[in-house]
Amino acid sequence: MSRRQRHDLDALLRSAPKTAYATVEEARASFDRMFDAPAPDGVTVREGALAGRPALEIEAGDRAGDTVVLYLHGGGYVVGSPRTHAALAGELTRRARTRLVSLDYRLAPEHPFPAAVEDALAAYRELLERGARPAGIALAGDSAGGGLAIATLLAAREAGLPMPAAAVLFSPWADLTLTGDSMETKQGLDPIFDRSDIEGYRAHYLGARDPSAPTASPALADLTGLPPLLVQAGSNELLLDDAVRLAARAAADGVDVTLRVWGGLPHVFQHQYGSVEEAGQALDDAVSFLSRAHAAAAAEDLVS
Amino acid sequence: MSRRQRHDLDALLRSAPKTAYATVEEARASFDRMFDAPAPDGVTVREGALAGRPALEIEAGDRAGDTVVLYLHGGGYVVGSPRTHAALAGELTRRARTRLVSLDYRLAPEHPFPAAVEDALAAYRELLERGARPAGIALAGDSAGGGLAIATLLAAREAGLPMPAAAVLFSPWADLTLTGDSMETKQGLDPIFDRSDIEGYRAHYLGARDPSAPTASPALADLTGLPPLLVQAGSNELLLDDAVRLAARAAADGVDVTLRVWGGLPHVFQHQYGSVEEAGQALDDAVSFLSRAHAAAAAEDLVS
Repeated sequence: MSRRQRHDLDALLRSAPKTAYATVEEARASFDRMFDAPAPDGVTVREGALAGRPALEIEAGDRAGDTVVLYLHGGGYVVGSPRTHAALAGELTRRARTRLVSLDYRLAPEHPFPAAVEDALAAYRELLERGARPAGIALAGDSAGGGLAIATLLAAREAGLPMPAAAVLFSPWADLTLTGDSMETKQGLDPIFDRSDIEGYRAHYLGARDPSAPTASPALADLTGLPPLLVQAGSNELLLDDAVRLAARAAADGVDVTLRVWGGLPHVFQHQYGSVEEAGQALDDAVSFLSRAHAAAAAEDLVS
Repeated sequence: MSRRQRHDLDALLRSAPKTAYATVEEARASFDRMFDAPAPDGVTVREGALAGRPALEIEAGDRAGDTVVLYLHGGGYVVGSPRTHAALAGELTRRARTRLVSLDYRLAPEHPFPAAVEDALAAYRELLERGARPAGIALAGDSAGGGLAIATLLAAREAGLPMPAAAVLFSPWADLTLTGDSMETKQGLDPIFDRSDIEGYRAHYLGARDPSAPTASPALADLTGLPPLLVQAGSNELLLDDAVRLAARAAADGVDVTLRVWGGLPHVFQHQYGSVEEAGQALDDAVSFLSRAHAAAAAEDLVS
């Protein structure tokens, strides 16, 4: 993408209405209207369920192999659903020629922390119980769903479950203590969020609970034993340091990790795969990463 | 690579003689003996010169396109030469089907900081003056050579020169203040270095000069305007945080950056491409990255 295109995308995002919503319902309705693109051609979508929660099951028409992605959508733990992320998750499914289950985990404030973690852990456990090999499963998520994916891995580790092959995180929200330098340095450069937006989501999700709990802020947790991670972000994000410090923490703990940051791009720019070249690149990188991780995990199964 | 293979590599590296060298000459001779593998088949090697310094010119037999890598070898700014890195640089050249110039920059203590930076900047300038397009040039380096590659970009930026397409850094030594957490936390896990080794190299290179100078410690510098960076490291390195913080700094400054850390692998494991699967993967990742970066830089030339 040229500098001009980055500028146009930035301007487009800034033009989105910034409303102080009177109610959570209004915020959800607005988010639903903003993210109403359907899944792309080339995948089938059907309503399903996983561990007692609704789930959207997306499958590539030319599906190859026997892998499955457990997808956790973004929306600050307060808004969004598998429907708002059907385009992004569907495009990932299509490019990876795989199957994906997007979980409708419970949202705050009605269901505060750790309800989302409990739902995602139960969903992962049920995938295993239905017979999926760990080496064939990957977790993926964006924004709050990215943090939730790591939290799910931590919860699975504590529960003694085997690790999946990998996890892919798009602009993860992984530090609910909000202590990243980028929370200050990217103020104004981030075309989507102000600090107060993020504080609002946190208040709904955590209330008075400790934001430094490992499954609330996995960027600050001990990540030992986690599978290979791919972390993607744009440099114009208040949450940039969530991605950077999650990767740093993983590296410090001996986890295979890839961090890729695109200069000048915003939070979860992968949504823009139809118009922004880097969004397609990012999804292709994720597909390559997943393919390699599934193969490596299967090979490790054979020798261990 | 299986866990067993990682263990074997670790044991092999630990078995290397750890001698407190009486003289710099002894250290250089020992390093020359340890790294005496020739360039691989498939490339030609010839002695050349660049900006008044000797340089090894390596070219793939099936060279495609018109790109060139300026390579800066590791060795703590004190030991090593293009000859000690002919295998690694040659294998990168072979896989990238490119041309590479490995610079024999002046070493410390005879030529302390910033002699190496001056030599590398002069070499980059001469590549440009000989007619190379910036979009066709990439910088690459390992260890001290990785830090030097970034320092060269900073010096080129200050000199008003155009940026090359990209830089690839293998386990860069990029913080001569030695303040990374990994300098402590990876002590013992790193099979190659103790802190005192690194302090010894620093003493030769810097003497009493300020270690926080941007071209001495580019991981702490303002990296605004640098081209896309690929940073690779192993998690079992005292210098892990040099890689991590270099990438973090780049991201904070809006630079396109990819950091990949392999769990359980040591400093500049890419040397082991003949026996360690991840070393070959890392080189292939570098090749893909360079190919994409050259194409993007050429496209940006067209639209700007």
